Amino acid sequence: MDKKYVIGVDIGGQTSKLGIVDARGNVVAQNVIRTDTHEDVNLYVKDLGAAIRTLAEQVDGGMGAVRGVGIGAPNGNYYRGTIEFAPNLRWKGVVPLADLISAEVGLPVKLTNDANAAAVGEMTYGAARGMKDFIMITLGTGVGSGIVVGGNVLYGHDGFAGELGHVTQVRNNGRLCGCGKTGCLEAYASAIGVARTARELLETTQRPSTLRDLPLDAITSKDVAEAAAQGDGLAIDIFNFTGHMLGAALADFVAFSSPEAIILFGGLTKSGDLIYKPVVEALNNNLLPLWRGKVKVEFSELKESDAAILGASALAWEA
Amino acid sequence: MDKKYVIGVDIGGQTSKLGIVDARGNVVAQNVIRTDTHEDVNLYVKDLGAAIRTLAEQVDGGMGAVRGVGIGAPNGNYYRGTIEFAPNLRWKGVVPLADLISAEVGLPVKLTNDANAAAVGEMTYGAARGMKDFIMITLGTGVGSGIVVGGNVLYGHDGFAGELGHVTQVRNNGRLCGCGKTGCLEAYASAIGVARTARELLETTQRPSTLRDLPLDAITSKDVAEAAAQGDGLAIDIFNFTGHMLGAALADFVAFSSPEAIILFGGLTKSGDLIYKPVVEALNNNLLPLWRGKVKVEFSELKESDAAILGASALAWEA
Repeated sequence: MDKKYVIGVDIGGQTSKLGIVDARGNVVAQNVIRTDTHEDVNLYVKDLGAAIRTLAEQVDGGMGAVRGVGIGAPNGNYYRGTIEFAPNLRWKGVVPLADLISAEVGLPVKLTNDANAAAVGEMTYGAARGMKDFIMITLGTGVGSGIVVGGNVLYGHDGFAGELGHVTQVRNNGRLCGCGKTGCLEAYASAIGVARTARELLETTQRPSTLRDLPLDAITSKDVAEAAAQGDGLAIDIFNFTGHMLGAALADFVAFSSPEAIILFGGLTKSGDLIYKPVVEALNNNLLPLWRGKVKVEFSELKESDAAILGASALAWEA
Repeated sequence: MDKKYVIGVDIGGQTSKLGIVDARGNVVAQNVIRTDTHEDVNLYVKDLGAAIRTLAEQVDGGMGAVRGVGIGAPNGNYYRGTIEFAPNLRWKGVVPLADLISAEVGLPVKLTNDANAAAVGEMTYGAARGMKDFIMITLGTGVGSGIVVGGNVLYGHDGFAGELGHVTQVRNNGRLCGCGKTGCLEAYASAIGVARTARELLETTQRPSTLRDLPLDAITSKDVAEAAAQGDGLAIDIFNFTGHMLGAALADFVAFSSPEAIILFGGLTKSGDLIYKPVVEALNNNLLPLWRGKVKVEFSELKESDAAILGASALAWEA
């Protein structure tokens, strides 16, 4: 019978979300397993295999109707099907995940960077429909990116292109990043970066803020967003700072690939104008005159979980 | 008869170099005209047309044997055949140069960024032969770049991709750049940037240097290179500073497109190890661990004038 479905898997540091998707891009059924409880990748592969089989049982034909599996993963390598040196995962070194999953479930498996997968999802179903040149920036726990050039994801020489969370945004006295470098964009423009900015401002100033009602070490970007939405001046300034950092970095990215649009994706975009306005302001302040006011900045149009699953699943059609 | 030749034109701020090239990449004859004496682009087009006809007379068949003209120009737009807002040229706004030249000489004309043209020349005849992913950085009066992804020049949404001289290298208190921004890489890593660094160090320190024998405002990057070659400590430090600035920026470029190699081209490369060593050191210090020691840095293998002419001429085969 026809293989009418693909399975998309979005591997995050804490959970892995998966969905079975039809040819029209409908996520027919979804499932979630834990990522972070498995120090041994082989046990994770067993769990994921079981979850894939459970999903497949929900469509006619079961596993026989599934064409392949697409995976979006941090530090995923499209060419080799590996996850390599991912700082936010417990598996160290080079993990041949595509081969392991393929052996477990008996299906072809394609794997890429989670942000690249999200970019493919956005291009196929979201804000980047019809665009051939755009950059997707994922603002989650970290900062990821998927760069599309001429309608194709930019993988680079080794499959690792598009690590824009790790350009050096602050060259002197920059924050230590999870990657071991200092001053990376990710240390400022991620959810963790927002929380760090909050702690810095609370500790180094005496400004009043409702954030002072919370234990300093427990403040999250969500707390900052809620305080800012209620008009807290310090919280609003945290978003201004974050947005200016991100916007200035985006200007450098435009100088590289001159995209039609930059699509922002992930938790921080829920703050709406609080983050959007300073991003656009700093972008235009740092662009060459020829691009000022011309580069679109848009929020993702896809539900966060769907974009990653859809993007990953799209890889499986090529499998 | 067969159109066996193409003409390549390299437009610089001061002079325009042109050559007639056969299918094997031999520059059969060359010519030079002034660029900067023509405030009116129409007079420049007349001069260039005459120079093209003079070149064509040196091959069998004359203009009838020429297939087309390829042009490399600052701020050249491949899609539109225009030069747009080039800060180092006297023609302001948008100049439809490809159409003007085509009307003047009656041949098809293709035009691109001068650095993109150099990248095509390097890929066809030079250090990037066989490479599909590399970045060419031209270190001349300014800093230009040609980015090759999957074997194709990256033009971006509007034809202006690859303005890597204008990423912001110094975010606070950066030098004013010719583009109107501050802190651009070009203000540090170009020939002009080297001269500015020399003046800054001579003015703000009391360090001894043979450069103090020269009038401060007349010091050029060539003077600095000669002093450094003779062991002048201050001059060597100027190259270290320049190389570290450039190498740190290159690390961000690698995070973008993950190239196999970065090819350095232009006057500053004549300084050899004086610039090469600090570039490679800073590059590796700023790269994500997965790329450290793995990205090749090479000097162009082509004569400076030939690379630009050959690259530009290669465009004409597509014309």
